[in-house]
Parts: sequence; structure tokens; C-alpha cells
Amino acid sequence: ANRLQVVFFPDANLVCKFWLEQGACRHGASCKFAHTQTGLATLLKALHSARATLDVCVFTITCDQISDALIEAHKRGVKVRVISDNDQKDTLGSDIHRMAQAGIPTRTDAEASHMHHKFAIVDNSLVLNGSFNWTRQAVLQNQENVVISDDPRLSHAFAAQFESLWQKYARN
Amino acid sequence: ANRLQVVFFPDANLVCKFWLEQGACRHGASCKFAHTQTGLATLLKALHSARATLDVCVFTITCDQISDALIEAHKRGVKVRVISDNDQKDTLGSDIHRMAQAGIPTRTDAEASHMHHKFAIVDNSLVLNGSFNWTRQAVLQNQENVVISDDPRLSHAFAAQFESLWQKYARN
Ligand SMILES: [Zn+2]
Ligand SMILES: [Zn+2]
Repeated sequence: ANRLQVVFFPDANLVCKFWLEQGACRHGASCKFAHTQTGLATLLKALHSARATLDVCVFTITCDQISDALIEAHKRGVKVRVISDNDQKDTLGSDIHRMAQAGIPTRTDAEASHMHHKFAIVDNSLVLNGSFNWTRQAVLQNQENVVISDDPRLSHAFAAQFESLWQKYARN
Repeated sequence: ANRLQVVFFPDANLVCKFWLEQGACRHGASCKFAHTQTGLATLLKALHSARATLDVCVFTITCDQISDALIEAHKRGVKVRVISDNDQKDTLGSDIHRMAQAGIPTRTDAEASHMHHKFAIVDNSLVLNGSFNWTRQAVLQNQENVVISDDPRLSHAFAAQFESLWQKYARN
């Protein structure tokens, strides 16, 4: 059977970067971040698993811990591409410019309507999709979901959609 | 293999009610609505297929054609329940009050944060989930997706989440 995981938010707390990346945190019980497999931890683990490509098509990206994961993937040689909404990219806290400055190719729609997807495809096989925008409010406050699946029917459909939008927004 | 279908929006046009429900439209080529299996047509067909239960947990519902489908399901004896966001229910065009007046039990969160899900479960088995809010703008203008799946892992996870929120919002 294929992998299928459903993650619900909100998380009670942001996840500890040391615990997540090194398996341990020297601050122990005094650390204010979570040392458990939170929803965000599961999402970040999926992004960290990227080896070749990481195609991201998300309406709003403001959560630094998530955009850091994309920048880190870019730095280790993963071909990262990001599509987002043009109305969101200039809002306070948007990480689109920061990712572009780090060298990640980014494109946005150029329309009053919304590029409203919230999906990502890891290595052309693992799809993350749901209601969840990549924001701190979505992590800590909202009722949200992300479905993580490696069903090839899903990855084929979303990869085709990503390529279609990547071409459509080639000038933006 | 289980059913898995990915629907992308926008549609070029709203779907014709006569074509959808009766398989034919007497206005023919002069009808201004689509006589093809649009994204909305696929979504409505899934809602129309409900025989026992229809649990809806969607941030914004303003598309009359979709709320009509819920009211019609309620009238033919399907146990329909609707969870939505409290900040959205009083906005212009929200169909929450109309569905409540038709006798459908509706609940909302009572928080400044968002009940941001956009999922539905038909007969406890078919899950519809994605970025797609149930609005006319999402149908006709936005880039959106809905994944339709009868994978029992998905329906179990979303049914549990629905029951949890239904209890959480019991007083709203
Ligand atoms: Zn820690
Ligand atoms: Zn017609």
C-alpha cells in the first residue's frame, strides 16, 4: 500500500529546531519549543527528505521555519521551484523575496484572482496537499489539514498542474 | 485500487443545472452554461451521490449551486451536517443561514483563528479535500484543487476530525 498520512493543525507549539534536525536539544525541559512529532515537524521532515526536486505551489508562505527548509534544500542541491500568489508575496512577513534572494526560482500569478493552491511535490513522488497555508497562524491557531501521499496518480496530476502553472507564470 | 480523482479549477463556465441533473438541456447551444463535466460538475455529482450522510467542513460557502445540492440532499433524507467559519458565515452571500433555515444542522467555530478546512465526507467513505472553498470565485477564477478519494485511511481520519470539531463547536 502506498504511504498516506493526514496531518491536522493547530499544533500546541512550534517544533524545536535542534530536536528536529539533530534528534536532541541540549536545553531539555527548559526549551520552549516542542520535542514531539508535531504537524509542522511532519511537514518539515517531508521537505527535508527532498533529494532531487521540490516543487512548491502555495498561496501564502510566511512561516520562516518552512522557508528555511526550502532554502536549506536549495543549498544542498535540490532543484527547488516556488509558485505563490502575487497579492500575498508583498504582504508583511512574506518569505518569497527572501527565497528569491537565496537563489530559488519563484513565480507568481499576475491576476486579481487567487493562485490558491497549497501543495508541494517532493522528488516528483510525494505530494503534500490540503487547506494549510505555510504561515505561523495556520500552524499554531487554525483548524487545517495536510494530506501526505505517494500515490502516483496524485503525484502525476499535481506535477502536471505545477508544470502548467510554471509555464503560465513564466513572465512573473 | 481505490477511487482517486483530482479536480483542478478554474472552470471556464458554471455548469448547466438541467444538463447535470437530467442529462440534457432543452436550450441546447443557446444555453449559457457548460454542458460538459466541469470541475464543479464533478464536485456536485459527488455530493448528489450521498445516500446516508454528508458531513461538510468548509471555511466559506457562498456558491448557491453547491448549497442547493446540500439542501436537496437534506430533503431526500440524507443526514447533512455543516461546519464553517464564524467570521465567514455573516459575510455577503454566505449560504450558512439559508442551509440552517432549510433544517440542516450547522455549527461554526467561535474563535478569531480560522476553521480553515475545505473537506466533505460522503456516506462516511468518499472524501473531498483540497484548497477549494465553496465559492463562485473559486469555481470560475482561482487556481484550486479538490482531491476525491475513497481510501478508508483518509475517510477514517477526516471523519474523526469532523466528529471532534462537531463536538468542539456544540454550543455554536
Ligand atoms: Zn529544544
Ligand atoms: Zn443548459
